[in-house]
Amino acid sequence: MDKHKVPYKIYLEEVEMPKAWYNLRADMVNKPAPLLNPATLEPCTAEELEKVFCSELVKQELDDVNPYIEIPEEIRNFYRMYRPSPLVRAYCLEEKLKTPAKIYYKFEGNNTSGSHKLNSAIAQAYFAKEQGLKGVTTETGAGQWGTALSMACAYFGLDCKVYMVKVSYEQKPFRREVMRTYGADVTPSPSMDTEIGREINANYPGTTGSLGCAISEAVEKATSMADYKYVLGSVLNLVMLHQSVIGLEAKAAMDKYGIKPDIIIGSAGGGSNLGGLIAPFMGEKIKGKADYRIIAVEPESCPSFTRGKYAYDFCDTGHVAPLAKMCTLGSEFIPAANHAGGLRYHGMSATLSQLYVDGLLEAVSVPQTSVFEAAQEFARVEGILPAPESAHAIKAAMDEAIKCRETGEEKTILFGLTGTGYFDMVAYKKFNDKEMEDYAPSDEEIKKALEKLPVV
Amino acid sequence: MDKHKVPYKIYLEEVEMPKAWYNLRADMVNKPAPLLNPATLEPCTAEELEKVFCSELVKQELDDVNPYIEIPEEIRNFYRMYRPSPLVRAYCLEEKLKTPAKIYYKFEGNNTSGSHKLNSAIAQAYFAKEQGLKGVTTETGAGQWGTALSMACAYFGLDCKVYMVKVSYEQKPFRREVMRTYGADVTPSPSMDTEIGREINANYPGTTGSLGCAISEAVEKATSMADYKYVLGSVLNLVMLHQSVIGLEAKAAMDKYGIKPDIIIGSAGGGSNLGGLIAPFMGEKIKGKADYRIIAVEPESCPSFTRGKYAYDFCDTGHVAPLAKMCTLGSEFIPAANHAGGLRYHGMSATLSQLYVDGLLEAVSVPQTSVFEAAQEFARVEGILPAPESAHAIKAAMDEAIKCRETGEEKTILFGLTGTGYFDMVAYKKFNDKEMEDYAPSDEEIKKALEKLPVV
Repeated sequence: MDKHKVPYKIYLEEVEMPKAWYNLRADMVNKPAPLLNPATLEPCTAEELEKVFCSELVKQELDDVNPYIEIPEEIRNFYRMYRPSPLVRAYCLEEKLKTPAKIYYKFEGNNTSGSHKLNSAIAQAYFAKEQGLKGVTTETGAGQWGTALSMACAYFGLDCKVYMVKVSYEQKPFRREVMRTYGADVTPSPSMDTEIGREINANYPGTTGSLGCAISEAVEKATSMADYKYVLGSVLNLVMLHQSVIGLEAKAAMDKYGIKPDIIIGSAGGGSNLGGLIAPFMGEKIKGKADYRIIAVEPESCPSFTRGKYAYDFCDTGHVAPLAKMCTLGSEFIPAANHAGGLRYHGMSATLSQLYVDGLLEAVSVPQTSVFEAAQEFARVEGILPAPESAHAIKAAMDEAIKCRETGEEKTILFGLTGTGYFDMVAYKKFNDKEMEDYAPSDEEIKKALEKLPVV
Repeated sequence: MDKHKVPYKIYLEEVEMPKAWYNLRADMVNKPAPLLNPATLEPCTAEELEKVFCSELVKQELDDVNPYIEIPEEIRNFYRMYRPSPLVRAYCLEEKLKTPAKIYYKFEGNNTSGSHKLNSAIAQAYFAKEQGLKGVTTETGAGQWGTALSMACAYFGLDCKVYMVKVSYEQKPFRREVMRTYGADVTPSPSMDTEIGREINANYPGTTGSLGCAISEAVEKATSMADYKYVLGSVLNLVMLHQSVIGLEAKAAMDKYGIKPDIIIGSAGGGSNLGGLIAPFMGEKIKGKADYRIIAVEPESCPSFTRGKYAYDFCDTGHVAPLAKMCTLGSEFIPAANHAGGLRYHGMSATLSQLYVDGLLEAVSVPQTSVFEAAQEFARVEGILPAPESAHAIKAAMDEAIKCRETGEEKTILFGLTGTGYFDMVAYKKFNDKEMEDYAPSDEEIKKALEKLPVV
């Protein structure tokens, strides 16, 4: 038992849970570039953003001064239902890999939404309720964000209208049913109840939709009704702010046992979980108090960091949302079919992009089959069946642990395990049946997509 | 915050976790009746049982003397990956119901198997490994047991052959994929690789199988191979023994905060989770140290306790397994289509049956739609999407809490939340679409099935 001095799972006491979110931007030397209005190409004002988003959330989005923003008590009470999430010492994985490395993961899948998305969903629903709104609209692709938002809205008694990309709506009926069980109104997109939906249906009969189109529908719906606003589950600064609860808890748990990570790893789609996990560690790094290696993991099929360009780009394919300066493959880049639906985004959080170009954040890309191999190996020894998105971080963490085996270094690795794979069994089946393929875009493809970047 | 003196979730420290299982039978005045050999109708000897089951498990099955049986360290280490499970104070549900009652639930769904089944699966796999076996066989209907056993076998490097009722195999491909991801060999039953499977396929072309048939196939397969034994996930005394970890943790957590439940509630199919949850509390009740109300909840469509007979009966429809003295509807009773697959068993644990006839345990039956209504209400305020089986206990707990609202009594209610409903969305869809129906068997139906009880 002595080797298990650090328990398998470190749970903070409820009184030790964070009372404020950490706003990393306040401590950044080079601030992330502002969002631009797509019509004027000028920085978005609060007034412009408030036409689409809740007022308090706009304030958070624009705040790069205050390092701590208090978490309202109602949100903290909801957090208590499923947080603190465990920080797990992966003893069994270490043994399996025969590595001297010490591996920890912060597990965010222990709630019905199955992922970290709930951390921001409950906050956004709360501020919508506080503003006296009747409801919110959003889009969902893989379905984790839609599920989380449905739960949050059910809790606060808000209407929740979800535009679900038609192909997912049809192929993932169970995801849709979870949202309906929580009372959400789920519409396949493109639909016939928005102008843009009708237009797309007319121009592309039989289309199965896209995230860009679903965003446009959700924004149109929200702005056409008096008491509704649009909410978004990733990319934005405000989402990273809410997700900082992951990193704050992880750091508090590690501090409690005197553990200091050498390497911190997270998978990156829009960047919300990675940004949340690393926030307090990056804050120390920026201030020169510690020197962590911090690594973003992205799919080889959608390599925004490792092969993209740092430039202003549209956030959506419909070009109705503001422009952001970010690592991007171009808003017209179409990633190959990749089962990690949550990582199929052409761009990246502006904050993380700034950290990347400043050399504070590394990035690696990994092929899909190697990710599922890692997922399976992890599941067999650690019990948890990970979401494909989360498994990108597992793969990179295992690679680092194996390097330690070779060099004999006893490094401490922390990674974010963002969610469970219960609704991803179609992808696992493909892997089990050995029908999964890898795909990396050619230089030509990326070059072509980057040529369409807007001139700002 | 003062009202939240008891935290939302009580987690024991790892060092506070039970080091021994509690064997309730040792403290029972009237012991459960012994299993009978179906050929001789004499009590089964250890030698007879060891032809089918692992030796150490047979010892546990027959032990009604030793109150505590040590949990081997390897099993305790595995438990540490997902246990202690949280004891949750349902503050949000209490507020929603406007009840003065204090509601607690022990949540067993925070692991990939999605249910309490893993508590016994890991123990059974461990003892199989210790005996030097190559693998184990089992059957699965709804799939929770098969999933849990696959995980346990992957951990100990054992082969795992699962006979999955053909209708489930076809209708629940995702459950099957989870098992395959953990390396299990999943065969639809009836199959062509056992004698009994071939016989049934010949006699009933196109049959979609039954649990009784899958049991027979799994037993035949295990006994026809040198290094394999058969394992079972419910009904048996040994399973209740392993599941006592639920009750021991719940009681330790409540004792820590000076909480004493007035009412303890669990759903009952074969009885393993209910038996495990109530074990230490029932022990105190038997010894006159406390007077808890203890309530089993069963589906109206399969009312073994409330409308069955206490008698010796076959445990399987194929009549190859031993006979047990239990509350039964008759082994030929076919429960109506009911989505709580885990509760569609004609009989009941012999131990719980004895407690019921001795007046130490109450039972209620509830209709299916009311169970899903409770499940949905619970999910919306407490966040967790429950398995239909688990929701039977939620329904009964909510009914008791509502009674408290009417009488003004501040009772403390504890119930077992055995698992999550991620793989039950077909049932939820039926409920959401208002296509779910209730069904209770007629007196005539039950009388007819009970006429076929064996004469012992």
